[in-house]
Amino acid sequence: MAKDKKAPRPKAQTPKGFRDYFGSDVSERADMLRAIAGVYHRYGFDALESAAVETVEALGKFLPDVDRPNAGVFAWQDEDESWMALRYDLTAPLARVYAQHRNDLPLPYRRYAMGPVWRNEKPGPGRFRQFYQCDADTVGAASVAADAEICAMLSDSLEVVGIARRDYLIRVNNRKVLNGVLETMGLDGDAQRDAVLRTIDKFDKVGEAGVRALLGKGRLDASGAYIDGVGLSETQVDPVLAFLTSKGTDAGATVANLRAAIGGSQIGTEGVDELEQMGALLAAQGYGPDRIVIDPSVVRGLGYYTGPVFEAELTFEILDDKGRKRQFGSVAGGGRYDDLVKRFTGQAVPATGVSIGVDRLLAALREKGRIGGPPLGPVVVTVMDRDRMADYQAMVAELRNAGIRAEVYLGNPKNFGNQLKYADKRNSPVAVIEGGDEKARGVLQVKDLVLGAKLAESASLEEWKERPSQYEITRADLVAKVREIIDQWA
Amino acid sequence: MAKDKKAPRPKAQTPKGFRDYFGSDVSERADMLRAIAGVYHRYGFDALESAAVETVEALGKFLPDVDRPNAGVFAWQDEDESWMALRYDLTAPLARVYAQHRNDLPLPYRRYAMGPVWRNEKPGPGRFRQFYQCDADTVGAASVAADAEICAMLSDSLEVVGIARRDYLIRVNNRKVLNGVLETMGLDGDAQRDAVLRTIDKFDKVGEAGVRALLGKGRLDASGAYIDGVGLSETQVDPVLAFLTSKGTDAGATVANLRAAIGGSQIGTEGVDELEQMGALLAAQGYGPDRIVIDPSVVRGLGYYTGPVFEAELTFEILDDKGRKRQFGSVAGGGRYDDLVKRFTGQAVPATGVSIGVDRLLAALREKGRIGGPPLGPVVVTVMDRDRMADYQAMVAELRNAGIRAEVYLGNPKNFGNQLKYADKRNSPVAVIEGGDEKARGVLQVKDLVLGAKLAESASLEEWKERPSQYEITRADLVAKVREIIDQWA
Repeated sequence: MAKDKKAPRPKAQTPKGFRDYFGSDVSERADMLRAIAGVYHRYGFDALESAAVETVEALGKFLPDVDRPNAGVFAWQDEDESWMALRYDLTAPLARVYAQHRNDLPLPYRRYAMGPVWRNEKPGPGRFRQFYQCDADTVGAASVAADAEICAMLSDSLEVVGIARRDYLIRVNNRKVLNGVLETMGLDGDAQRDAVLRTIDKFDKVGEAGVRALLGKGRLDASGAYIDGVGLSETQVDPVLAFLTSKGTDAGATVANLRAAIGGSQIGTEGVDELEQMGALLAAQGYGPDRIVIDPSVVRGLGYYTGPVFEAELTFEILDDKGRKRQFGSVAGGGRYDDLVKRFTGQAVPATGVSIGVDRLLAALREKGRIGGPPLGPVVVTVMDRDRMADYQAMVAELRNAGIRAEVYLGNPKNFGNQLKYADKRNSPVAVIEGGDEKARGVLQVKDLVLGAKLAESASLEEWKERPSQYEITRADLVAKVREIIDQWA
Repeated sequence: MAKDKKAPRPKAQTPKGFRDYFGSDVSERADMLRAIAGVYHRYGFDALESAAVETVEALGKFLPDVDRPNAGVFAWQDEDESWMALRYDLTAPLARVYAQHRNDLPLPYRRYAMGPVWRNEKPGPGRFRQFYQCDADTVGAASVAADAEICAMLSDSLEVVGIARRDYLIRVNNRKVLNGVLETMGLDGDAQRDAVLRTIDKFDKVGEAGVRALLGKGRLDASGAYIDGVGLSETQVDPVLAFLTSKGTDAGATVANLRAAIGGSQIGTEGVDELEQMGALLAAQGYGPDRIVIDPSVVRGLGYYTGPVFEAELTFEILDDKGRKRQFGSVAGGGRYDDLVKRFTGQAVPATGVSIGVDRLLAALREKGRIGGPPLGPVVVTVMDRDRMADYQAMVAELRNAGIRAEVYLGNPKNFGNQLKYADKRNSPVAVIEGGDEKARGVLQVKDLVLGAKLAESASLEEWKERPSQYEITRADLVAKVREIIDQWA
């Protein structure tokens, strides 16, 4: 073929950290998101789709003392010199949308949003710079009924996509309870408080004894290095540990333990009351502790949120890279964040929401065998005689009109072997063959390619003879026979 | 509420030329695209989703003599100084994907892609800088069977979303026929050829006499200014007009007219043969001239494509801004472009495809009443007693479990009027009310809000009394009664 010598050829390459999604990777994600959108819709949430591009000012990622947006976002200047950027999540655009359209939106405003977000970060294995988020938020509802509703909706969403009950658990905590605990400790200023928050965040990793040591004098870490502690006394540390380990045998016991841990603090009491109310509201809707549970050991995001915090964990085990069993872990999280819109309007607006990790949930569904496996491709009608393309097209039209995915081979038909290789690459269940001889006799050859592949892999000569994978049928039987073969493998 | 005085507040504003989509605008588009994807899938096309971001090099929008990408794309430099940009269509990414993954992809490769694209252009009324495209292309198939298939698929797609047969027409032309015509004219170099092509592009606007004048000596335009012509002789102009007006009473007549217009040119004959073949292939699949027709007056894109060209037009009339009747016009177009992948690999790869104008097709469906109108909102369960939130949540859970969209009012419940105003803003079909009195008696009040609004608008006092829009029901009848009311308005 002719080569173009004029200019150096561009590289056919995705930019670093970006990838392409093919076939079922696209449709499986779309199906999952559509099922979740159905649940969100039933809960009264409305779809919102904002543009991928926001002003950097609205995103709030512009530092006043530097002359371009800080790391983390992809940003550029518009013709009028103003900075624009790709959204890095779906929450910042919600804040902008709500502030911009608040006179036209219902109050409270329940919305869901699904779509790609972009992060200008160093890509790594499995870490991409564009990925999907799937969020639902309620803006303008101060009541914990809004938080309870989000938890119930999250539970329904996980089940509707195929995560079985008892394969997941939604754990709920409350930032105000922690604030109550911090109050009882008599901490020395914000720095010490922040050090305590940072330490609590490590609870998942270092456990009870680890947190106790790190809040006190310090500890040796796994590498043998000594990590300095926050320097608190035992009396100060006790309430933190009481809080983190307060999960009882039932919600009543947990609440009693929490009340003890906060020692009468007003904000703490508010937090415990909220947890109790959420439990009651969820129970009234039929969501018991087999699905949603108060669990004060949930600390992820506790520093960021202002009230209830929730996390959905998948509780079944998978094998990690090294073949060791571990729990699948978190697939969604959220909570209450009441200062969302204040940046724009100066008015505090209560808000609560959840974000589902789309890629992690898809991975979980694959792990459970709910999706994945090579999907069956289209029926391939082969081309034995280039001049009879109209005949072959009529066959695929018939199949398609009967709802069967089908196509004519459109490559160079000279080499019949290439046509069967193509059908193989497409994972076609059936190849249809009509040569001149068949045409004259009014028949077709129909090959069961799935059975053919199975036989080729393992069959003895006897089995091979007994179970032919190719059938001669009359032309009129095309749709019926193809459907019969497909139905057996679908 | 507290005001933040520290920093100037950011503006809550979409960047210029971008917009937000709410509720049914999002879901109607998603439904339409899903229906089209179903057709594409049945034809054996696979989904492809590439990232929004491409290297500027791959997009081919980088001029070697300037130091930044040319206008039209949103572009920025990555940390390693390389230029990245948002894709401006779905065809350029297809070329990159095919070149990058060609060893793993089937040949021919049929793919569809749906998603936003971005244009760095001056926004205007109804002209946005982010909008959706919906493409299907076959790469690696030289046969016009591939083009015919795309036309059939386009026809099925229009019908599946709700455009009735005879409300649309797919018109097919062929660039090679035009090339044959140009050959017969004895033109004087490329400049004259390009001038002829530009003039032909105006055929839709200026008609037969206009094109004849513009190819010859020139003409007065509507404003009275004289437009210079290309300066061709009558003998040179004749074949062009013969070509443009060659549509006969049936395909046979059109083909005969075309053969006369190309005067034995080899490339022209190839083009006429291709049109004839496409007609035969489509007829064999049952797509007659009531759906797909050879029409040499289709000139849009004729300069860009290399073989068959097709355009889907909606033939029903709408009223324009000034109340005048006009045809709805084009909603999709495409054709064969055989140099797509050559930029990357040096090898010419045949390709053909179609792009559906997503926003125009949605507008057409709204025009036809297939979608649109304010969608019914959720049933709203009002809050009469803040302490009985659990009761109200149990009601919505019951409704949702029965598949009915429902929500509890989550704003401040003090003012009952606000709750009904909220239900109104949400376009709720039903409000459910359970005060202390109702609770004690085991009953609920259920308001038919659609009927209520109708009565409020127009009813006489008698009608008002005769057709009550509020019902007292027992608690156990909640789901049945709500369903009865909704079904009557759905």
